[in-house]
Amino acid sequence: MGNIITLTTDFGPGDYVGTMKGVILSIAPEATIVDIDHHVRPHDVLHGAYVLYAAVPHFPFAAHVGVVDPGVGTARRGIVAVCEGAFLVGPDNGLLMPAAQRLGLKEVRAITNRELGLPHRSDTFHGRDLFAPVAAHLLTGTKVKDVGPVVRDFLDLDFGTPSRRKGGWEGRVITFDRFGNVITNIPRAQVETTWSFGDRVLVSVQGYEMTVHFVRTYGEVERGEFLATISSSGFLEIARREANAAAQLGVSPGNPVSVLSVSKP
Amino acid sequence: MGNIITLTTDFGPGDYVGTMKGVILSIAPEATIVDIDHHVRPHDVLHGAYVLYAAVPHFPFAAHVGVVDPGVGTARRGIVAVCEGAFLVGPDNGLLMPAAQRLGLKEVRAITNRELGLPHRSDTFHGRDLFAPVAAHLLTGTKVKDVGPVVRDFLDLDFGTPSRRKGGWEGRVITFDRFGNVITNIPRAQVETTWSFGDRVLVSVQGYEMTVHFVRTYGEVERGEFLATISSSGFLEIARREANAAAQLGVSPGNPVSVLSVSKP
Amino acid sequence: MGNIITLTTDFGPGDYVGTMKGVILSIAPEATIVDIDHHVRPHDVLHGAYVLYAAVPHFPFAAHVGVVDPGVGTARRGIVAVCEGAFLVGPDNGLLMPAAQRLGLKEVRAITNRELGLPHRSDTFHGRDLFAPVAAHLLTGTKVKDVGPVVRDFLDLDFGTPSRRKGGWEGRVITFDRFGNVITNIPRAQVETTWSFGDRVLVSVQGYEMTVHFVRTYGEVERGEFLATISSSGFLEIARREANAAAQLGVSPGNPVSVLSVSKP
Repeated sequence: MGNIITLTTDFGPGDYVGTMKGVILSIAPEATIVDIDHHVRPHDVLHGAYVLYAAVPHFPFAAHVGVVDPGVGTARRGIVAVCEGAFLVGPDNGLLMPAAQRLGLKEVRAITNRELGLPHRSDTFHGRDLFAPVAAHLLTGTKVKDVGPVVRDFLDLDFGTPSRRKGGWEGRVITFDRFGNVITNIPRAQVETTWSFGDRVLVSVQGYEMTVHFVRTYGEVERGEFLATISSSGFLEIARREANAAAQLGVSPGNPVSVLSVSKP
Repeated sequence: MGNIITLTTDFGPGDYVGTMKGVILSIAPEATIVDIDHHVRPHDVLHGAYVLYAAVPHFPFAAHVGVVDPGVGTARRGIVAVCEGAFLVGPDNGLLMPAAQRLGLKEVRAITNRELGLPHRSDTFHGRDLFAPVAAHLLTGTKVKDVGPVVRDFLDLDFGTPSRRKGGWEGRVITFDRFGNVITNIPRAQVETTWSFGDRVLVSVQGYEMTVHFVRTYGEVERGEFLATISSSGFLEIARREANAAAQLGVSPGNPVSVLSVSKP
Repeated sequence: MGNIITLTTDFGPGDYVGTMKGVILSIAPEATIVDIDHHVRPHDVLHGAYVLYAAVPHFPFAAHVGVVDPGVGTARRGIVAVCEGAFLVGPDNGLLMPAAQRLGLKEVRAITNRELGLPHRSDTFHGRDLFAPVAAHLLTGTKVKDVGPVVRDFLDLDFGTPSRRKGGWEGRVITFDRFGNVITNIPRAQVETTWSFGDRVLVSVQGYEMTVHFVRTYGEVERGEFLATISSSGFLEIARREANAAAQLGVSPGNPVSVLSVSKP
């Protein structure tokens, strides 16, 4: 069954993450707890969904707990997404869905079995009181059918579908990383059928228009130069070599971005 | 005996935390090391005490190392607080005491056995040279009586006692989290005997006066609206739904805060 | 052989670190993964080299993965530095060398065995696709001679050699920590043959000149006062008690710093 539990939250530093680890180890003393990311932008479900989407396919069998949960304590349900080689546990707000679809979603179950949570459940911290315990119980023998019923009306979420434009694509910014590399929602498949490494493309974002090289990696352009490449998660990425593209362009998640072919002279 | 060692420090990113982990694994190769929080505000003993207080009761048997230690290398002692189901190891500056009292403090011992530390002890990094090794030795068979003598003049610390006011309580801000939720030192027991969910209360802090709802959870008010609730650690909390209360109010730890009943019209 | 893998990167929060952990656990399910530091300044190879240098000597046998890699995907090689009691795995850009020399470097091997990386190697994330898998394979039985050939033209790196000045030393700032303590490249051996604890020294850095005490630890001066001490990593350190020296002085890594004796009146 494996004993890996991963954690992805917007909790940042503080007692919350440590508390969840204590709860897990109380139920599953043999668990291997792996921090994926606790700096998801506060309340940004799409950002958390991206982190899970990028990271979880690289794990062996695991229970992945995701908590970006502005609706904690309201009527929104807790769910387990049962996937090929993984459970995903968290709120029913779309957070788990892109990763679940990528892994191969088998079914979604609502968490209704009160015995799986902590006895005194708070209304503000289901990461501690519900999701961490459920993940730990799933690793220690609780059957998924005992979590609760299969539901089909779960909230779905994706990164959006880029639009075909004459000579390219228009999509949106999903997020940017610590280096300022900007991840768009234009998937590798669409990029690779449109351009080849070495092509020049016209990137338009936040009022900037610039012609850059589409390259395999950062070191193929000059220091400070903008470029387009394929992100390690498989999307079109706008970057600068050893410099911060996101800061220079003033990019925010959700901004439209278009990438068009440059006609060869 | 268990094999969990948790770490709570103000070290932030850098080599210090990794170094402590290496020391622990050198002494206790089977240890499960759990990061609770390394972003305690620098030198803020009360903040570190709060993180430990909130997190450690949720762990099974463990040795909890806390290092917020502006007095490192001076005459201040190192101690082990022996509790129900836990050792707490760190400086004798109050850091460990709220958590120890919450767990059930049995005795405090001064660390005087020089053989338990690293052979070449620095004067600036007892986390590495003293506290991590002592915790690792306690998990691998060293008896607590071999750490050093019981002491009764350890430095105590608490979060302060809120004062009864006509129609409510006046306390202080302990800390705020990444979301900007403000944790006061007014305990759940006093809150629950004074108000019921749904009541409106008058909150005064940092020159602001506002009437807010006392609610079970954030999602019960409008986005951006202020509210009062019970924190997951069991204190009165002032928050805004999906917005940053601490930043908006300019709140700092230690600020006085009063919460009073609103007379029903 | 041991089962510890440590990670030191400039990736910051996000999916990259979690992804590396998944890759490691897929190959080496028994691995104990230890985060050393993921907040190395972006692309700052010297900073990463310092973190590794300070932390890895405190570990038992381990494979240490270091990724600060502006040249990812270019002709720069991946290497394994085979040391006393450790493997260091990362790019051939100097990052691993100060730690390797401190541990006792036996040989450096270029990673040429394509079977050790992930099958579909990206050109932008060798931490995931090459270095993490190689480290995991080394812990699970792959012999170091099967990684690739011994190379002697690897890129070396050190923290620079301070110059002797009349009455002291002139060196450079390596980095500063979260407290604002400034770590210079003047080694303990040179400090201890020049001054004794209690001496007053003249520190010049960034246009500031100040006479401070050379002390064993912070608590020996007044709050807010500047001081000189020995860092826990073994270098001359400029600090302020419970205050931020680096911010006050406007210090950046690489800045020259001189420390001279003060003639006794």
